[in-house]
Parts: sequence; structure tokens; C-alpha cells
Amino acid sequence: MRVVVFGGDGFCGWPTALHLSARGHDIVIVDNLARRNADVELEVSSLTPITPISTRLKAWRETSGRRIAYHNFNVAEDFYRLTSLFDDFRPDAVIHFAEQRAAPYSMKSERHKRYTVNNNVAATHNILCAIVESGQDIHVLHLGTMGVYGYGGGAAIPEGYLRVELLAPDGRRVPREILYPADPGSVYHMTKTLDQLLFYYYNKNDRVRVTDLHQGVVWGTNTEETKRDIRLINRFDYDGDYGTVLNRFLMQAAIGYPLTVHGKGGQTRAFIHIRDTVRCIELALLHPPKSGDRVAIYNQMTETHRVEDLAKLVSSLTGATIQHLPNPRNEAPENDLIVEAKSLIELGLKPTRLEAGLLEEVVQVAKQYADRCDRSMIPCTSTWLRQKQDRPDSETLQLRLNAVSSAQGGERPSQYE
Amino acid sequence: MRVVVFGGDGFCGWPTALHLSARGHDIVIVDNLARRNADVELEVSSLTPITPISTRLKAWRETSGRRIAYHNFNVAEDFYRLTSLFDDFRPDAVIHFAEQRAAPYSMKSERHKRYTVNNNVAATHNILCAIVESGQDIHVLHLGTMGVYGYGGGAAIPEGYLRVELLAPDGRRVPREILYPADPGSVYHMTKTLDQLLFYYYNKNDRVRVTDLHQGVVWGTNTEETKRDIRLINRFDYDGDYGTVLNRFLMQAAIGYPLTVHGKGGQTRAFIHIRDTVRCIELALLHPPKSGDRVAIYNQMTETHRVEDLAKLVSSLTGATIQHLPNPRNEAPENDLIVEAKSLIELGLKPTRLEAGLLEEVVQVAKQYADRCDRSMIPCTSTWLRQKQDRPDSETLQLRLNAVSSAQGGERPSQYE
Repeated sequence: MRVVVFGGDGFCGWPTALHLSARGHDIVIVDNLARRNADVELEVSSLTPITPISTRLKAWRETSGRRIAYHNFNVAEDFYRLTSLFDDFRPDAVIHFAEQRAAPYSMKSERHKRYTVNNNVAATHNILCAIVESGQDIHVLHLGTMGVYGYGGGAAIPEGYLRVELLAPDGRRVPREILYPADPGSVYHMTKTLDQLLFYYYNKNDRVRVTDLHQGVVWGTNTEETKRDIRLINRFDYDGDYGTVLNRFLMQAAIGYPLTVHGKGGQTRAFIHIRDTVRCIELALLHPPKSGDRVAIYNQMTETHRVEDLAKLVSSLTGATIQHLPNPRNEAPENDLIVEAKSLIELGLKPTRLEAGLLEEVVQVAKQYADRCDRSMIPCTSTWLRQKQDRPDSETLQLRLNAVSSAQGGERPSQYE
Repeated sequence: MRVVVFGGDGFCGWPTALHLSARGHDIVIVDNLARRNADVELEVSSLTPITPISTRLKAWRETSGRRIAYHNFNVAEDFYRLTSLFDDFRPDAVIHFAEQRAAPYSMKSERHKRYTVNNNVAATHNILCAIVESGQDIHVLHLGTMGVYGYGGGAAIPEGYLRVELLAPDGRRVPREILYPADPGSVYHMTKTLDQLLFYYYNKNDRVRVTDLHQGVVWGTNTEETKRDIRLINRFDYDGDYGTVLNRFLMQAAIGYPLTVHGKGGQTRAFIHIRDTVRCIELALLHPPKSGDRVAIYNQMTETHRVEDLAKLVSSLTGATIQHLPNPRNEAPENDLIVEAKSLIELGLKPTRLEAGLLEEVVQVAKQYADRCDRSMIPCTSTWLRQKQDRPDSETLQLRLNAVSSAQGGERPSQYE
């Protein structure tokens, strides 16, 4: 198939592009390198030594014999580059990773909030609008997040849709199937709930075929393809903005830094390994919705864990200590999370379980590149509430005091220190 | 109260600014004149001879003795003008009309779709973001639309929220109150569903107090205040993009043009007179949500009618003939519409009924300015589907044939002719 990967230089986009190229698909990457620019802004680098995109593409040609084309433009701004690309390449499908994807980054300041909203909405809308303009029947695969649903309620989160009954004035109950209600917990998550409505509308009005993959927190680093050559290595983020919780724990364990648990660690999250991410995307690519079908929504995750339990697991494997810090997020201190995720398993996914992959990550990635870690970048300095409005409760105050008394030497001072 | 009216030069914004100024509120208008620029683009003018904003404001000073301040900037782009305004003026409330508000305009081309999405989302988000930055407790009143809910289902549309039951894995039913499900029928309507989620999130995370007024189709032209001086007259749109259905019928009747009914006219819509719009907004301004309250959502309409019935009513009052044209919209040919709209009545609204105001509009506005009408601007030339994808059904084909055979002389050729 001919496939455009928007955001194909990023953490999920790059291994996806290689995975699909290795399986014979004809791949074009579009990326404006926004993720690398965010590293420049945040004064942080991937723990792994990622190479420039041109080096990556050259290495892929040399190791696989296959070419991936690359265009550097901004999907959110350069609409006519999009329509030209669709006219010239005539893709069967596009995979849309071209969004700002970190919740803490989206909360850093008004500028980051506005960038996240304007970029993510315009990128998604431009892609949909350009597909309609092209007159082509292009399948859109989009990376959503389990976080669109919030983390509460006690009921199982189905794959996209909920049957409800509306009450008619005469007392009749009118059954209806609706998008599962959104309850975003950050500006970033909010943009993914906006995406859902964009997909809903363009699917309804213009019959655009869409698969929306609501992904859990991704962990792990490399896939079969990114391991083929050191120049193909995938990025590994450990900083307070872009680092995801489990990868941060693995890196912290590798360098002898305490595992930083926000609040009591009672937050339950869904997880998936990067190897399974790329497999899920290929499965969704090979099984598109038919013309006229509603948006296909799959929960792309393989297991759920409490953050505190993950910290204990990593601690037991590595001997790392655990440090509780105040939670910068405005969220419930504890939550259940029950997720229905049958569709991708039914399509053939064989999950990589946590216990099978954790030690490999610690040894092969985190320990190997531990000397590249800048410890001052570990604390999360983004907060969910404006500081002068922030009225800490007694639990938070106590955690701040603990943080002060156990502060590590040498880190950039965080707001809690 | 100190109140900013964003979009205060427009059809609803201008009479709202005057209504509140007349009642002693301290008003600042922010408007980039986008609505007047759309007239330039579409080569059309308000049927009524509206004056430039500076003339309007001077006339208001002379007739009322009250000053309204005016700033020309783009709320969707000039974020730091917003934060400066909030710092300097310290408003109690803002009223947000600063959105592209015509469904047909939003469907004209990819450029109009993208302008509508980017402008409306950024305007709403900038206002919310600037309020959080200001640290002030500013009440946001927003003009939404009944169209966020679509027009179907057969159940009564409540004021914003729906009680549903989620099914827990153990079979328990978990009650939850959700935003009434969105089902937008155009790109414009879609942006109002995105607004809802922006309000939901900023209310939840930052406790921004919001009243979202889901308005019906507005008819009528003038209010008590805009009648005080000819220079204060409100705009009256009759063109295929910005003209709303009832005002178009009134103008068509006044100039001896057949009343243009799209499809069979089975569409049922909610209506409200412009006089009631400004009263509703004042009521909502005087009864804000308390700190910590969820978003207040009111259905701002006073009656519902089928389009065909409205055409017959206007025809019976004026002797105008009725012409059925193909429906450019992608919508059900007929729908029920049952709306709960008690909140604003309970706050004191006394509705202006259709039968009481229709003849006044025909005589005082439509007939008086009939010579300003450009008949070529009456047809709606925007369509909901790309033309080469458009597979008309037999009803539409028959209506097109009828349209061709009864085409009026002298009009700009529409795509159906």
C-alpha cells in the first residue's frame, strides 16, 4: 500500500514508518521536525543517540534496500503541500502522528496551550479537508489516547461507542449509540477529544474512512527494525515533559535516581509496548473500515497498572528507591481503569507483556546510555493550575515538605523545592 | 458591570452592546470587522444601510449620552491584546460572538472550512486561556447553536446535559451526567461542538465560569436601541450564505421574489427574535454560574417551526409564491425538533412571538429597503458535498429539473441552473 506517515520522525512515527516499509509498503514521511525543536526549547536530548532524519533514511536504504521519501513541511500550516502530495502520491492511507503529544508540555504556559490546540486541531482538520478536496478514498489512521475518556467512573471503557437511551416527551425511551463521553484531563488530551468530533463530522458528511486508535502510555524503545543499525535507533524521552512514566522509571533505575512517583501513585493507566504500537497500526491499516462505515475506534493498549505498582516492580527488579513528589496534575489521586480492548487482539495482536520486556529495556537502553542523562531534566516543572490560584491540600503540602527534605543534589530546582 | 463584547459589530453583537450600554453597563467592543469583510468577499451588502462602526459609536454617544469603547483586533490571533485588555479593563464578563457564524459560508470551499475551524477554535481558546492568565474570575457568555445537537432522534433536547447509565463489568449500572451528545450538520456547527469541549475542560480544570447559550435561528432586525437613530440600524442579511431562513422569506416577499424553500421544507428549526436574543444575554449576564458550578447551558429559543409552514405563513400574509429548490445541505429531508427551554423563561424572558412581529418586519424593514436588494445574491451557492462526489437522489434530481424550468430571470446562475 502507499502510505503517508505524518509525524514520521517521532517516537511512534519513526518505528511505524520502518515497520511498514519493511513489510513492503511504499512510505512517505512528512515531518516538520517539531519534536526535535521541542528538545532544543527544553534544553534536553533523547537518552538514545538519535541521528538526523537524512542519516536515518540513508541507513534504512543501506540496511533494507528500501527507500522512504521525506517531505519537511507543517501539516497544520501548509495546506497546499498536503493537497499536492495527495494528488502526486495518491496514498491508500495516511497515518496521523503530527500532533503535539505531551500533556505536561501542553500545560507549561499559555503559549504551549495555544500551540497545542492550534497545531493539533489544524493538523487534523487540514488532513481531513485535503482528503475531501482530493476526491480520493484515503483511509485515515489516527493516534488518539485512552485519556480522552478521563480516568474515572468505575465502568469499563468500550471501544468508542456507548449505547444510551434518550427520554422522549411522551415517556418513550429512544435508544441511541453515541461517542463514549469525553472527559479530558489536560489541554493535550482535550485536543484529542476535538479530533474525535472532527472525525465524526467528516465521516458523516463526506464518508471519510477513519480508524482512531486510542492508545495507552507507550513504553519501550526499539522495534525489530530500529535495532538493525545504530543509526536507526528510536528516541527515548526521560524529561519531565515528554518522558512517559514507565520509561522514566527505567532510566531513573539505571542511573541510581529515585523513582519519582507523583502523589500517592494511585493513578491507574493503560500501557502498550512500542513494538505492539507498530503492529497494531499495521493491523488497522490492513483492516480498514468499509466505505460508509462509521469511524472505527479501537483501544490500543495491552495491560493496565497502578503507577505505584509499576514503581514497586521496577524497584524490585533493580533495587531503585521510590520517592513520592507532589502531583503537578489536577486529577483524582486514585482511579480504577477498566478497558475493553478486544478488536486488535481479534485482528491478531500478540501482546508484549511488561514482565517479558522490562529487564531488556533497563539493560539494553537505559543502562547503555545512562551517561547521556542530564539529571536536571528529570523533574516535571509543568503544573496544571496557575500557581497563584494553586491552593495545595494538606497531602500536597506534606509531599512538598518531603521533597524538600530529600532533594537530590545537582538537579535544576523544581517549583516544589 | 464591565463587559467586553467580542464581535460587537455583528448582527447579534451590535444590538447586544447597545442593549447592555442602555442599561448602565460599561461596554468595550472588540471586533476585527471580519463580518463586513465577508460582505466584500461575497459582493453583497446588508439590506439595511448600516453605518461604519465609528459612526455607530458616535451616534450612540449622541442619542444615549453613553460611551462604548472599541478595539479593532483579531481575538483568534492577537492573544496579547486580549491579556492587556483584561489587565486594563478588568471585565466582570465577556460575551463571545467572535466566530464565523454561517453554515453555508463554512461549506463554500476548503479555504472557508479551514478559516471557520481555525478562527472559531482559536478565538474561543484564546479567550479562555487569557482569562486563566489574568487570574481574574471573568464570566464567559458564549453564543452556541441548537445545531450542535443535530436535528433528529425524536427525543426532547434538554438544556445541555443528559443522564445516562454506564455498564460496569460486574453488571452494575453507573449513573453519569454527560454533555448532551453532539451531532453537527456543517463545519460551522462542528466548531460549536468543539467550543463545548473547550468550555467543559477550562471549567473543570480552571473553574472558569461559563454560560453557553444554544441559540435558535435569529429573525427580526432591530431592537429598541437600534431604532433610536437611523445610524444605529442593525444589519439584515438576505444572501445565500449569511441570510437566515425567515429573514430571507420576509425580504423575498417584499420584493416579489418566490420564497425559496430548500428540499420539501420539512426541516424543523428553533427560532428567536433579535429582541429576545439581547434580553436573554442580559438575563444570563445578571444570573451567572457560581464559582465551582459546571458550565451553564441554556437553549435560547422561543418557538419551533417547519420551514414549509413558515413559507406558507409568510405567503398568507403577503401573497408571495413558494418555490422549492434542491437542498444544498446534507441532512434529513424532514425532522422533528422538541426543545426544553425553561431556564431563560424562568429568569424572566417574555418571548416575542412570530405572529406579533412578522408584519412589522415586512413593512418596516424588508419593504422599506427593498430597492437595496441585489436579486442575484439570493440563491445559496454553497453545497455540503464536493460536486463530483455528489450522487443526487431522485427527489433532488426532480427538484433540480423544477428549478431549471422555473428559473427567475436576472439572477446570478446558481449551480442548479
